[in-house]
Amino acid sequence: MRGREIHLVSRPSGVPDETNFRLVDVEVPEPEPGEVLVRNTMLSVDPYMRGRMNDAKSYVPPFALDAPLGGRAIGIVETSNDAALAPGTTVAHDLGWRDFACGPAKAFRPVDTSLAPASAYLGVLGVPGFTAWLGLFAIAGCKAGDIVFISSAAGAVGTTAVQLAKRAGARVIGSTRSEASAAVLRDRLGVDVAFVPHEGQVAQQLREAAPSGIDIYFDGVGGEQLEAAIASANEFARFALCGMIASYNTPIPGPRNISLAISKRLLLQGFIVSDHAARMAEFLRDVAPAVGRGEIVAEETFVEGLSRTPAALISLFAPGGHLGKLIVRL
Amino acid sequence: MRGREIHLVSRPSGVPDETNFRLVDVEVPEPEPGEVLVRNTMLSVDPYMRGRMNDAKSYVPPFALDAPLGGRAIGIVETSNDAALAPGTTVAHDLGWRDFACGPAKAFRPVDTSLAPASAYLGVLGVPGFTAWLGLFAIAGCKAGDIVFISSAAGAVGTTAVQLAKRAGARVIGSTRSEASAAVLRDRLGVDVAFVPHEGQVAQQLREAAPSGIDIYFDGVGGEQLEAAIASANEFARFALCGMIASYNTPIPGPRNISLAISKRLLLQGFIVSDHAARMAEFLRDVAPAVGRGEIVAEETFVEGLSRTPAALISLFAPGGHLGKLIVRL
Repeated sequence: MRGREIHLVSRPSGVPDETNFRLVDVEVPEPEPGEVLVRNTMLSVDPYMRGRMNDAKSYVPPFALDAPLGGRAIGIVETSNDAALAPGTTVAHDLGWRDFACGPAKAFRPVDTSLAPASAYLGVLGVPGFTAWLGLFAIAGCKAGDIVFISSAAGAVGTTAVQLAKRAGARVIGSTRSEASAAVLRDRLGVDVAFVPHEGQVAQQLREAAPSGIDIYFDGVGGEQLEAAIASANEFARFALCGMIASYNTPIPGPRNISLAISKRLLLQGFIVSDHAARMAEFLRDVAPAVGRGEIVAEETFVEGLSRTPAALISLFAPGGHLGKLIVRL
Repeated sequence: MRGREIHLVSRPSGVPDETNFRLVDVEVPEPEPGEVLVRNTMLSVDPYMRGRMNDAKSYVPPFALDAPLGGRAIGIVETSNDAALAPGTTVAHDLGWRDFACGPAKAFRPVDTSLAPASAYLGVLGVPGFTAWLGLFAIAGCKAGDIVFISSAAGAVGTTAVQLAKRAGARVIGSTRSEASAAVLRDRLGVDVAFVPHEGQVAQQLREAAPSGIDIYFDGVGGEQLEAAIASANEFARFALCGMIASYNTPIPGPRNISLAISKRLLLQGFIVSDHAARMAEFLRDVAPAVGRGEIVAEETFVEGLSRTPAALISLFAPGGHLGKLIVRL
C-alpha cells in the first residue's frame, strides 16, 4: 500500500517556509507480529517543533533531514497484530506527519472517546492542556484570588490555561495577537481583561489591565511581554516559563528589568511536560470530566489535508492566526 | 554631648559621589528610660544601600534626605537605661552612619565576641554571610558534587559563599574584578577556578572554567555574567538571584538567552534576607563555630574614620576594589 509523509528537507533559518518541507510518496510497511497499522485522522502542529528543526542539542533530539517529522497524531487502528489493540480503536501516538503509521503496539495509546471527542486529546486533554495545568498548578501554585497574566492566551495552551485559572478562582488577564481572539477570550472563555500587545507599549497595557499587579505570569511568548510581566509583578510572584515564541525564529533582547526579580523575590521556573509525565493521569482525572460536561471548552481550529500541514505549522508564527488548538484533519 | 552623622543630601544618578553626602555635627540625645546610648566602633557599607538612595518603592523604604543613612553598625553600650543591656556590651544595630546611636534597648542586639571578633558580625556572621548561606542552601539546594559559579566572589557575600560551597563538597568557580583578588580566592579560600570577567568574553571564560557546565549560579552581578551563567547552565540548574550590582547605577541589557530557562528547566529565584530572619539563629549555629575554629575565614578590609564612609561606599562600585567585607572603623 502507498502512503504519504511530510519530510523536513532543509533546516529553516528564521520562520520556516514551504521549501523546508516535501510531501513524499512512500510504501507503507505491513505490520509485523506485535505491530499495528494506524490510519491517521488528525495531526498536531505545535510551536515547539520549530526548535527541533534546528540541528542543536536540546531536551529532544532535532528532527532528521529527509525523514517524516515526528509529532502528536490521532488515528484509528486498521490492522492489528497485537491483542491489546483491536482494529477500530482510536489511538494517540507520536509518529507524526504521515497518513499511515506502522509500529509496535506500545507506541500507540488508546484514548477515551466516551469522555471527549478524539481531537480533544491533541489539545485541551493533550500535551497543550497538560502543559497549561502543570504550569499553573505544579509550577506557579495558582489559587483563588491570584491575578494571573497569560500570554499567547488564545493558543492551544493559553485557551486551556485561562479556563483552568478561572475555574481555580483567579482573575485572568490574557494577551493575544488579534482583536477577534481577544473578544473570544472575553466572551467565550471568561477572561477578565484581554488585550493585543503593541510593540513598545506592553508594559503600559499590562499596568492598565492589572492595576494591582500580577501574582502569576504564564509565559508563552517571552520578549517584551516577559519584561512587562516583571514590571507588573507583585512581590513573590511566580513565573511559569513555558514557551518564548517571540525568540524562536529571531534573537530578541532579554528583559532589561530582570534585577527586579531580587527586590520582588520572583520565582522564574522553566518547565517541560515530559519531566512530569507521571502526572498525566492525574491531569486527565481532573480535567477530562470538566471537558465532558462542557465546563471547559475545547477551542480548536481545523485545517484539511496532509499537504497543508507545513502551512499550518508556519501559520503558528504569523500574527493574528487561529484560535485554540490547530489541528490538521486528514 | 556632640556627635557626628553622615546625611544623604541629594539622590545620586548613576554612581554616587561625595557631593551626595554631608558630615553633620549634631547634639547626641540623652537616653530616656528604656533606652541606651551606644558608641559605634564599626560601620558596614553594602551595595544594597545604593538602591535605597533612589526615591523608589522597594522592599525597604528609601533613605530620607537630610537624615543619617541607616545601615548595620557595631558599637559598645556607654549608658544604659535598660536592665537587659549592661554598659560595655558589644551590640549590633541598624542605626547607621553616626558615631553615637541612641534608642530603645530592643534596637540593639548583643553579639557573642567569644565566638568571633565583633567585626565578623558585619561580614561572615552578619547579613552578608547569612545571605551567602541562604542563597546556597535555602534557595539553590547546594550539595556535594554541584558545580557552583559565584560572581562577585571576592566581596563580602562572595568570600563567605565560596567557602560554604567548598565546605559542602561543591566545585567552585568564582569571578572577581582583579587578578589580585582572583589569586586570594584560589590560594586562601580554596576556589577551584577564579577569573576576572572581560566584557564580551564572559560566556567563553565561564565555558573554559566549567567545561561540564554549572549546577548553581549565585548571582551578585547580573548583566553579562548572568547571561553567561544561563549559557553554561546544566539542566535543572538553580540560580540564587542575590544582587545585580552591574545594573544598580546604570541600565544594562537583559539576558538575551533567557529562553534557555525553558529547555534547561532552570529555576531563577530572587531572595532577600529579611524574609528569612527566622533562620538567622540556625545560620549562626552552623557557621559561627567554623569561623571560631578558623575553618571559615572572615575576609575583611578596613577603612578608618566616619568621614571616609561615603568614599568607602562609592568604592564598592569601582573596579578592582577591596577584598571581603568592607568595614569602616571609627
